[in-house]
Amino acid sequence: MEAYFDNSATTAPCGEAVSAMTDAMTRCWGNPSSLHRSGNLAKELLDSSRVSIAKRLACLPEEIYFTSGGTESNNLAVRGAAYQLRRMGKRIVSTSVEHPSVDETLSQLEAEGFEVIKLKVDSYGRINEKDLYAAVNANTILVTMMLVNNEVGTVMPVEAAKRAVLMARSPALIHCDAVQAFGKMPIRPVAMGVDLMTVSSHKIHGPKGVGALYIRKGVKIKPMTFGGSQEMKIRPGTEAMPAIAGFAAAANALPDPQKELEHIAALRGYMVEKLVALGDVVLNSPPDALPYVTNISVLGIKSEPMLNFLSERGISVSSGSACSKGKKSHVLTQMNLDRRRLDSPLRISFSRYTTMQEIDALVAGIADAKKVIRAVK
Amino acid sequence: MEAYFDNSATTAPCGEAVSAMTDAMTRCWGNPSSLHRSGNLAKELLDSSRVSIAKRLACLPEEIYFTSGGTESNNLAVRGAAYQLRRMGKRIVSTSVEHPSVDETLSQLEAEGFEVIKLKVDSYGRINEKDLYAAVNANTILVTMMLVNNEVGTVMPVEAAKRAVLMARSPALIHCDAVQAFGKMPIRPVAMGVDLMTVSSHKIHGPKGVGALYIRKGVKIKPMTFGGSQEMKIRPGTEAMPAIAGFAAAANALPDPQKELEHIAALRGYMVEKLVALGDVVLNSPPDALPYVTNISVLGIKSEPMLNFLSERGISVSSGSACSKGKKSHVLTQMNLDRRRLDSPLRISFSRYTTMQEIDALVAGIADAKKVIRAVK
Repeated sequence: MEAYFDNSATTAPCGEAVSAMTDAMTRCWGNPSSLHRSGNLAKELLDSSRVSIAKRLACLPEEIYFTSGGTESNNLAVRGAAYQLRRMGKRIVSTSVEHPSVDETLSQLEAEGFEVIKLKVDSYGRINEKDLYAAVNANTILVTMMLVNNEVGTVMPVEAAKRAVLMARSPALIHCDAVQAFGKMPIRPVAMGVDLMTVSSHKIHGPKGVGALYIRKGVKIKPMTFGGSQEMKIRPGTEAMPAIAGFAAAANALPDPQKELEHIAALRGYMVEKLVALGDVVLNSPPDALPYVTNISVLGIKSEPMLNFLSERGISVSSGSACSKGKKSHVLTQMNLDRRRLDSPLRISFSRYTTMQEIDALVAGIADAKKVIRAVK
Repeated sequence: MEAYFDNSATTAPCGEAVSAMTDAMTRCWGNPSSLHRSGNLAKELLDSSRVSIAKRLACLPEEIYFTSGGTESNNLAVRGAAYQLRRMGKRIVSTSVEHPSVDETLSQLEAEGFEVIKLKVDSYGRINEKDLYAAVNANTILVTMMLVNNEVGTVMPVEAAKRAVLMARSPALIHCDAVQAFGKMPIRPVAMGVDLMTVSSHKIHGPKGVGALYIRKGVKIKPMTFGGSQEMKIRPGTEAMPAIAGFAAAANALPDPQKELEHIAALRGYMVEKLVALGDVVLNSPPDALPYVTNISVLGIKSEPMLNFLSERGISVSSGSACSKGKKSHVLTQMNLDRRRLDSPLRISFSRYTTMQEIDALVAGIADAKKVIRAVK
């Protein structure tokens, strides 16, 4: 049995998602664009899947565009908005702790002549709202900010982006990478003042290979790929029906996020207390982080031997983003942590299936690692 | 029971693909980039899937890059090659009968300042090789040509592209959209002189939402999306593991394409003879088309009422590409067919599961349609 604490990297698909995919492969396997029996069945499944995702964002089904995942949604939103509004300005405002799929897309745009402002963060990964208001000006065409940081769980003040845009009388669109927040806290893009929002299936117990981009009705962005007329030509190509159906089933199976948060917060409190009691354990996440993600440093033990030690016991944690495998965490670096903490981060990420027994196994594993790995040194 | 003749649009997933996907959702659901038990399991599955696809193209596993499907692979190949070589020339040579995912990408590049030559075709959808040799010059940076046309089954002289490039001393890369050919005829990109080749899963009884791009070792193209280091940074984002595993299983389950061709050709001969005997049926496909795709016109009956009539009987055919839903076929238009043929095309596309009984039902359906639909007129 694996004690799995890497739910920010990916989650175990829920039974509902597996069943829905099997059904989409055996009964509803048609091409939704085909005008015959199996095509119609697939089209109905596509439409109902769109409704399922829209419900979770309290938006219209036609505001949901399916993509191949969070990375594609982030690329499409950032580049698509920048290209759409390039004649109105060159400035893009973001933060210094975004996911690589936003961060590297911004680097590309910078190389193409856009001006990219990345707001600095404090030692808890938080931006200063005043910096945001100062950065957004009348030439700003895009503000892109994640809702929950993937490495430390910090909740970012995305709503402030709308205020900043209004104050500056800027034409900017507002994009939010909500991959780590979706399904884990109540999210309403309209209420947040967000025009574009990225969500992903495989972080909410759905299959890998599918995600969505919310595009507020009336907002126009440029597509990145060209071809058929699927997804209103914003994202052409035959729709990934088994994965889309699995994503929708996983979304339907989500518990009420607000209620679930209380349970997860209690689990987190239980774990943090035990971990801190071990000694030499520092919390890198802020106290008010989304409790699904807890980043700690076990001082004196580098991440890699710790991960290996735990993995041998069937305990799965990570040192940071799976999309930045092997590199030093750019988020913790931006948080300006000292070298001891930078050398030894562990990201422990929960799901609704996480148990106290798993937490006990993790704490015992880290306690043993502290004895064994130090002894080797 | 559906008599399904729309296998060029999509195919019924084979049992092997369904099982592999279920396994990838229940046992191997980790993130291949994660350095722990479930990550390792997923990484092994990803690696073995890559080997399965490579085997079918007689290429190296590291020459296979997984994407979200044929449309993305075509976009990535065409744009990625054009951007990579833009300093060496501006000319791109293609044909006038490509799939929208190539054709519309070329239109975009044209709008950005590239010079795009689309070779004309004859009434069988064939280009003239002399036109190809004349079109490719020293400033040509890309030749992109499909291997089998998706609407009429015409096999294109892709090997001639390499000769054209050598004769012109051109730096051009050669891309081939092999979506409709993969699994249905022996294909070896190296032997064909092709640098980039697109293949798709859902045309070979695998799941929708996954495809691959073959990139010959040593060939460099620009990525279209940015983020993590997956797929050698050519195509970042968490790998679509259930779909990739299903694609690999479908590839492994493919029969020997050369042997299968004989069987399919016999089925096609049986069908064409019966259809022509009905009267007023014209074959739009060339006699030497890949026998999986047969395009006919039933003179005097427009496609839409015919499709609806057949669909009500559980017989699924199409009027053309699913990616061009509702539009007049651009392929048949380029073939310069007369209006009566242009108004009434039917694309009948086989798979290895197609039976003589299904063909009999189709022929009977078309025979009845000729009586009923004309009677209504």
